[in-house]
Order: sequence, then structure tokens, then C-alpha cells
Amino acid sequence: MEILNKDTIQNLLGGIDLVPLIEKGFIAYSSGQVIVPPIGELTFNDPPGDVHIKYGYIKGEKYYVIKIASGFWENEKYGIPNGQGMMLLFNQNTGQPLVLLNDEAMLTDIRTAVAGQICAMHLANKINYIGVIGTGLQARLQVEYLKKVTQCRKIVVWGRNDQKVLEYKNDMIEKGFQVFIENNIEDVFDKSNTIISATASSTPIILKEFIKPGTHITAIGADAIGKRELGEGVVKLAHCVVADSITQCLERGEISYAISDGEIEENQILELGNILSGKSIGRQDTHHITIADLTGVAVQDVQIATAVFESYLENKK
Amino acid sequence: MEILNKDTIQNLLGGIDLVPLIEKGFIAYSSGQVIVPPIGELTFNDPPGDVHIKYGYIKGEKYYVIKIASGFWENEKYGIPNGQGMMLLFNQNTGQPLVLLNDEAMLTDIRTAVAGQICAMHLANKINYIGVIGTGLQARLQVEYLKKVTQCRKIVVWGRNDQKVLEYKNDMIEKGFQVFIENNIEDVFDKSNTIISATASSTPIILKEFIKPGTHITAIGADAIGKRELGEGVVKLAHCVVADSITQCLERGEISYAISDGEIEENQILELGNILSGKSIGRQDTHHITIADLTGVAVQDVQIATAVFESYLENKK
Repeated sequence: MEILNKDTIQNLLGGIDLVPLIEKGFIAYSSGQVIVPPIGELTFNDPPGDVHIKYGYIKGEKYYVIKIASGFWENEKYGIPNGQGMMLLFNQNTGQPLVLLNDEAMLTDIRTAVAGQICAMHLANKINYIGVIGTGLQARLQVEYLKKVTQCRKIVVWGRNDQKVLEYKNDMIEKGFQVFIENNIEDVFDKSNTIISATASSTPIILKEFIKPGTHITAIGADAIGKRELGEGVVKLAHCVVADSITQCLERGEISYAISDGEIEENQILELGNILSGKSIGRQDTHHITIADLTGVAVQDVQIATAVFESYLENKK
Repeated sequence: MEILNKDTIQNLLGGIDLVPLIEKGFIAYSSGQVIVPPIGELTFNDPPGDVHIKYGYIKGEKYYVIKIASGFWENEKYGIPNGQGMMLLFNQNTGQPLVLLNDEAMLTDIRTAVAGQICAMHLANKINYIGVIGTGLQARLQVEYLKKVTQCRKIVVWGRNDQKVLEYKNDMIEKGFQVFIENNIEDVFDKSNTIISATASSTPIILKEFIKPGTHITAIGADAIGKRELGEGVVKLAHCVVADSITQCLERGEISYAISDGEIEENQILELGNILSGKSIGRQDTHHITIADLTGVAVQDVQIATAVFESYLENKK
């Protein structure tokens, strides 16, 4: 078996069209072709940290994938990234290990951005401004990946920390965007019809009063139990509520709150893979409000790891 | 991070005294210093196979360990070992990956043999003959590892398959043992006071009529639900019943049957780490019967992986 490091992986990614592969993964997931056992977890107290092991496979495909990702929050004190991560690919017919992708968590960031791109393609109206709540890594990557699906290069952004908002603005200008900073989240919603919410907030910051007809929201931030960005009644306003995984979204994320608050019923949730396959219908009217809640599904890891490894094998020939 | 392959690992093992390290692991486990979450499992139907992910750490030590092991039962058709395995070591303070030990499951076999060695040291009488039920890998390794704790070089062996028994005999003669083949399991018990039972049997083959005063049994075979070597009433005869992990032995292995059949109560089970620390007392009389039930604990993986990695670092200096 081999180890591919982050630089090699980054080079390989340049030549891969991830969208059809990740879409195929979501469709397989929603049609019951994917085995994803419960996430393994290891917790540390001193220093604090946690490790997640996500794993699974698509039935009948070549590989199974095990992803090991960790967050140790005091790392930055020592100049080490808080998040660490790797993916391992094995032969689905023999169990033999094939490759370790030592991507340092980059592949998770990218497969998440691609999922957002897919949601915007299938759920948003023609984008007028890209609305961004948050200034972190996903607030950047999600926008960059939208480049491929919209001509729009105008961002309206809100962030809690002024310094970080300025850094965000400068960085995104360099990437070819016009950036408008807003002081209130509501102003972002006033300008933009397509919002990426990607903060680590644990209290709702997006209120139902902000939401206009025609808005699409891709909610990225609330990927773990206890995190929440959308306020009471927001999900209820949506004509179309989409989960990457209904099972996971019942446990964590925006939809879980909407269900427990009685805003919507479980049978009102659509699954992304079913929209992609045409089994469910997404946006039906330009005035409709759509919300996609992304918690991250192991099949995305399976697909991106497979794509990187197969591209590596192809280039090696 | 680095990959060490099987040959490198085997060379390093030659210079390591594993017994005190594995003993330390068992003691830490029994004193509540070890975090071992539930085993992760991935199952395949076509071709049939399963993958187990075992992971954990000793609080306050340097590393945490994730072991990935698989069994794909049709591999041998293609000349590939059925069992595959690797261990990964990470920094317990930062989550950074340090090394992949691509041991192809060898380290699991060895840490299991060392556990048997420790049981014999602490529970068996002075060995007259080494009694062996089974002719597979553990039937060999367990005996080899006993070399370090006994002068006895005489084996009495029983196996289901005559051809495999002969191969076993020849192989063990080469390793410096005298080997006596018995046609009945009872005859092994008649000669030997220290028995290793290491078959993959799912029906009891060791009956209570066979057990003599002074016997010690190390039961290796029943490491998974549905496997069983000791017949009804055998565990009840023992004055001292030892589990590597009481929690695991209540779920699987010989002790789980003895408990559900009402032969013994949970509070009669001693844990290996407590015997090693002196908290519990093992054999108290040469006439007593002792049974050790080994199901395999992740702390053994933690300790053997740590030892290999530290020996590697030491040799690199």
C-alpha cells in the first residue's frame, strides 16, 4: 500500500470533476445501496480532543473507505492545525489495504463544498448575490465551488469578528469576487437570494423575519449535536426542506430542531439523493423558499477518496 | 507519518520484551485507566467478509491506537490471506498520525500469544506436558511463547484433522518440542496439567469429565459470539475463573455461556489485570482448577503497537 500526501492529493484533485461522482454517491445512498455504520468516537480530556471514525461503502463498488478525523482544540497554541484527518481505501472483495490518503482533512472540506455546490445547482434560483454568513473555511470554499455553477461573482458577507470579515473580503477579492460587507445578517438576506450559512454557532442567528420569497439557504454550520444557526420557524417557512441524510438530520442539525419543535413532520423532509435521481422534486416555483441541511455523509468520503485514488492510478500508467 | 511493513515489524519484535508491557496494559485496563469504545463493524455479503475497527488508549500515555482487521473467507481461493490487519498510532495530545504498522494481522496473533503466556505464568502449576487442543496458528504461537516461562518442551496435541495434526507435529519438532499425538481430547487432559484450547469450534468439545485436579485451561478459541469450546459444567468446576475483560466475557466466549447457564455468578469472575496487580488472587492451591478466557482487549493492541513504534524510533537514532 502507499501513502499519498496532501500536496499530491491537491494536484490530483485539479483534474477531477467531483460533482457527478458525489451526486452518484448521494443517489446510491438514498436508494439504499450504501452501508454506513454508526460513527466511532474517541474522546480526550487533557488536552481536550475528539476523534471520529466514519466508514462505509457502496455495494458492488471496488472499495470501502475508513476516514479518521480529529479535532484537538489546543493545537493552535503549538502551531499545529486543530483538525487532522486521513482516509484509507481497502479492496471491497478482499479487505486488502490499498492506499492511505494523508489529506490532513482537506478532502472532507472539499466534499462538503461540493455538496453545497450540488444543492445550489438543484435548489437555488438564478443567483443575484452569494450571501455568506460566516468567514471561516467553508464560507470560502463553498463560494469558490459556486464559481462552477453561477456567473455571479458578487458576495454579501456577514461575520461576527470585524478583523476576520476584512481578511475574508481581501482573500475573496483575490479569488475574483466583489465583496460587500454587511453589519446585520438581515441585510445579507435583503440582498441575496442564495445564502450559505457556515458558522459554528450554537444559538440561532438567522431569524424567520429575515427570509424573503425565493431564498435558498444551504446550512453547513450545524454539523454536530448542540450546533444551530436557523431560528424558530425558519424551517417551517420552507416549501422544500432537503437533508443529505434524513437519518442523520433527525439526530443533529437544523432539521432535528424543526422536528422536535413540531415545525415540520419527518415525511416532509426530502433527501438530496432522491432529488438528484428525480424521485423527489426540489424547487417548484421561483417564489418558493428552499433549505438544504448538510451534516456530511460517509458516502461523500467514499466517493472523493475513490476519485483521488483512481486518478492516481491513471496518472501512474 | 511512516509505514512499517511486516518484515520490519517482525525484526523489531525480536528485541522487545512484550510481557511487562502487555501486563502493564491489562493492569491499566482493570484499574479503569483505559478508554475502549465499542468495536466498529462493517459487513460484506458478496464475497462474504467482515471488518473490525478496534481503538482506544491508556489515559495519560503518548498514543492512541486504531486497529483495522478484516476476514474475507474466499481470499484463499486467490492465494491471498483471509485475515488482513493494520494498526495506526496517533499522538494523544494533538491527534497527529505517527505511523501505520502494516503488520497484516501478525501483531494481533502475537499479543494474543503473550496474553496466554501471562496466564500460564500466573495461573498454571509447574507444567508437566503442554496440552494443545487445535493445530492452527494460536496452537503454535501459544506454545512457542510458553518457552519463555517453562522448561517443559513436551506437547500432547489433539486435532480434528489427521493431516493437520501431522503437520503440526513436524513443525513443532522443528521448534524444539517433543510432540505426542492423542486421538481423544480426554487423553490430552489425562497427561497434561496446562491446556491451551484454540479451535474455531462452535460446539463444546471439552467436557467436564475430562478435567483433573490441578488443571489450568487457557481458552483462546471462543473469541466471537457463537463460538464455544468448553462444555456444560466445566467453568463451574474451576476454583478460579479469569477474564481478560469481564465486560467482553459477559458478551462472548466461554464465560458468557457459564453465566447464562447459571454455573457461576458475575462476581465470581476475576479480571486478569487485577491478578497481575495483586488486587485479586489467582491459583491458591496446586489441586485447584483454573480457567482463563481470552477474548482479546484493545489495550493489548495499544501496548504492542506502542512497543513496536518506540523500538523503531530508538533504532533510528
